[in-house]
Amino acid sequence: MKVKYELLKEDTKTNARRGLLHTNYGTYETPMFMPVGTQATVKTLSKEEIKELGSGVILSNTYHLWLRPGEDIINKAGGLHKFMNYDGPILTDCGGFQVFSLVKNKAKDITEEGVHFKSHIDGSNLFLTPEKSIQIQNKLDSDIAMSFDECIPYPASYEYAKKSTERTLRWAKRGKAVFNNERQSLFGIVQGGEYEDLRHLSAIETVKIGFDGYAIGGTSVGEDKETMYKMIDYAIEKLPKDKPRYLMGVGDPVDIIEGVIRGVDMFDCVLPTRIARHGNAFTRFGKINIKNAKYKEDFTPLEENCDCYTCKSYTKAYIRHLIVANESLGQRLLSIHNIRFLIRLTEDLRVAIDENNILEYKEKFMKDYLHENNK
Amino acid sequence: MKVKYELLKEDTKTNARRGLLHTNYGTYETPMFMPVGTQATVKTLSKEEIKELGSGVILSNTYHLWLRPGEDIINKAGGLHKFMNYDGPILTDCGGFQVFSLVKNKAKDITEEGVHFKSHIDGSNLFLTPEKSIQIQNKLDSDIAMSFDECIPYPASYEYAKKSTERTLRWAKRGKAVFNNERQSLFGIVQGGEYEDLRHLSAIETVKIGFDGYAIGGTSVGEDKETMYKMIDYAIEKLPKDKPRYLMGVGDPVDIIEGVIRGVDMFDCVLPTRIARHGNAFTRFGKINIKNAKYKEDFTPLEENCDCYTCKSYTKAYIRHLIVANESLGQRLLSIHNIRFLIRLTEDLRVAIDENNILEYKEKFMKDYLHENNK
Repeated sequence: MKVKYELLKEDTKTNARRGLLHTNYGTYETPMFMPVGTQATVKTLSKEEIKELGSGVILSNTYHLWLRPGEDIINKAGGLHKFMNYDGPILTDCGGFQVFSLVKNKAKDITEEGVHFKSHIDGSNLFLTPEKSIQIQNKLDSDIAMSFDECIPYPASYEYAKKSTERTLRWAKRGKAVFNNERQSLFGIVQGGEYEDLRHLSAIETVKIGFDGYAIGGTSVGEDKETMYKMIDYAIEKLPKDKPRYLMGVGDPVDIIEGVIRGVDMFDCVLPTRIARHGNAFTRFGKINIKNAKYKEDFTPLEENCDCYTCKSYTKAYIRHLIVANESLGQRLLSIHNIRFLIRLTEDLRVAIDENNILEYKEKFMKDYLHENNK
Repeated sequence: MKVKYELLKEDTKTNARRGLLHTNYGTYETPMFMPVGTQATVKTLSKEEIKELGSGVILSNTYHLWLRPGEDIINKAGGLHKFMNYDGPILTDCGGFQVFSLVKNKAKDITEEGVHFKSHIDGSNLFLTPEKSIQIQNKLDSDIAMSFDECIPYPASYEYAKKSTERTLRWAKRGKAVFNNERQSLFGIVQGGEYEDLRHLSAIETVKIGFDGYAIGGTSVGEDKETMYKMIDYAIEKLPKDKPRYLMGVGDPVDIIEGVIRGVDMFDCVLPTRIARHGNAFTRFGKINIKNAKYKEDFTPLEENCDCYTCKSYTKAYIRHLIVANESLGQRLLSIHNIRFLIRLTEDLRVAIDENNILEYKEKFMKDYLHENNK
């Protein structure tokens, strides 16, 4: 089935909204944070652990799976769910974000037909087109596929942004034309850079093509926060209320709050697992680095009131020891906590929407969270 | 409490025996395989996973914990169990095995007083004595501490083996003299190299000192299989029936069977987790390397009838993908299977002892296991 968004409640003072996302694998509440499983595994976690965190949809990366193990092997396994043995909804990205970062000569390698680039594994020459991206995703058989787009860098000239945005629209049409999977949904992606009229154009035209949901792309690419929030506003102004809205690649806690206030339903980011690898943990009072010597004899959990497995079972001193000794259980425990932290944040935001006090929630959260960071 | 060994059944045709080991954390069946958690963590596994494997005692390494995080921090945490949050029995080794591998100049650095060597972490000069080893282990508060010994290399001259064995006996006395932990047991270690009279001497004199259990050390150090099995025989001839016998560092499936046949109750080895890191899995038909291209599209479990989490949940193709893509979940899944394989082996051996057919079991096992290895 195609995913369906059900609007439950709109905030009275902001664009924030609560809803439900109906999927092939059950119904999940929004706003939601989606953990990222780049290579068909959320780094260090088992499928049971992913579920225990309260995850709804999880993400996987088309570019990575295309190269390794290859979409045909996953298709032969019976699709990505069977390959990973994961019985929850999975969204695959379109590969664009990875591919554009591997392009050597922008002017020459990005063509109307598609994108030329070199494999990050063996340097071989590869070519990805909108059709190919969709065909790979059809074979992966995720629950939600993403339209192939160019993630416009920041800053970009108006001319470049316009040219790229219009090409992404043509790519979206081409992708949709070859899309062929009954049980899979297809989301369009709004680009347009920092420019209000281009974001409007992109949103309006993408909606005209018609998708099961809409993503906002091209944020978190180096722009300042105010610019990022404007990009979100511009896009959402022209998006329909009856479809889910997904802000791609955003996982900073403050950005999640700002996104929800602007009407975003879905977020994803590698941040919680990536910072875990460097010994960092989210806490209500800002990020901490567990390698800091002050945690050597700290026999309290990462966060006193956290309900995650890590906080219920282990102390900072033990996790510090694991990270310092380069034991992978350390990464796993921090990943569990960090993902749960962001999912808990979205749970809190849902309650705040119900209680019409999301702006107060934001103010309190930022006071605590940024305070410690500035110490 | 001190551990107690309860003999349940002796095999009629071999020295194999079934028993129970009563510990501070419950009673466990022997023969048993003990997973190794070098740095207060069985690599990649959570405490729940360790239990699920059917583990009895687990191991941790005194040398590693002494250096990192330090025995005082673990003591302040309330001991190793609280530090790791593990409520099962833990055995700590004496540090000797690691320390002797770090000695630069054997003649100069191994003294009657103790051993001079350099830290593997920062190269600093360290000195470990029998008293210090015991004091560290007392502080770690494991359930079973090991006496400080020299693991004699192979080959070693009769003169060296004699000198070393006698010194290990003096070290055993010195360690026992300072031992001070009511709830901890202390095991002695039989050395003697390959020499029958020295193994006898070592066993007899170690038993005279009096310990809660006896380990056989200095095997698996490069000797051929027949020599190793003789070393075990020589030691066990002089060990009492009412105490547990522990063959240190042995985890090859065939060696476990041979050890059990000779009367060994406890085994430990890093093998199952170490080979997992290189993509290897134990199977009844020999070790396999999952990176082999033939598993790319193999959608069957590592072993058809294995009851482990990995085999119940994932295919060879998926595990291969994880290992090739360097995803730590791959190591974890192989570690789970490999440890469970050895624990299942000891479970089978207990049944074989009950049924007086351990020699038939061995013959059948070796036929299957070595056959594939020789392919």
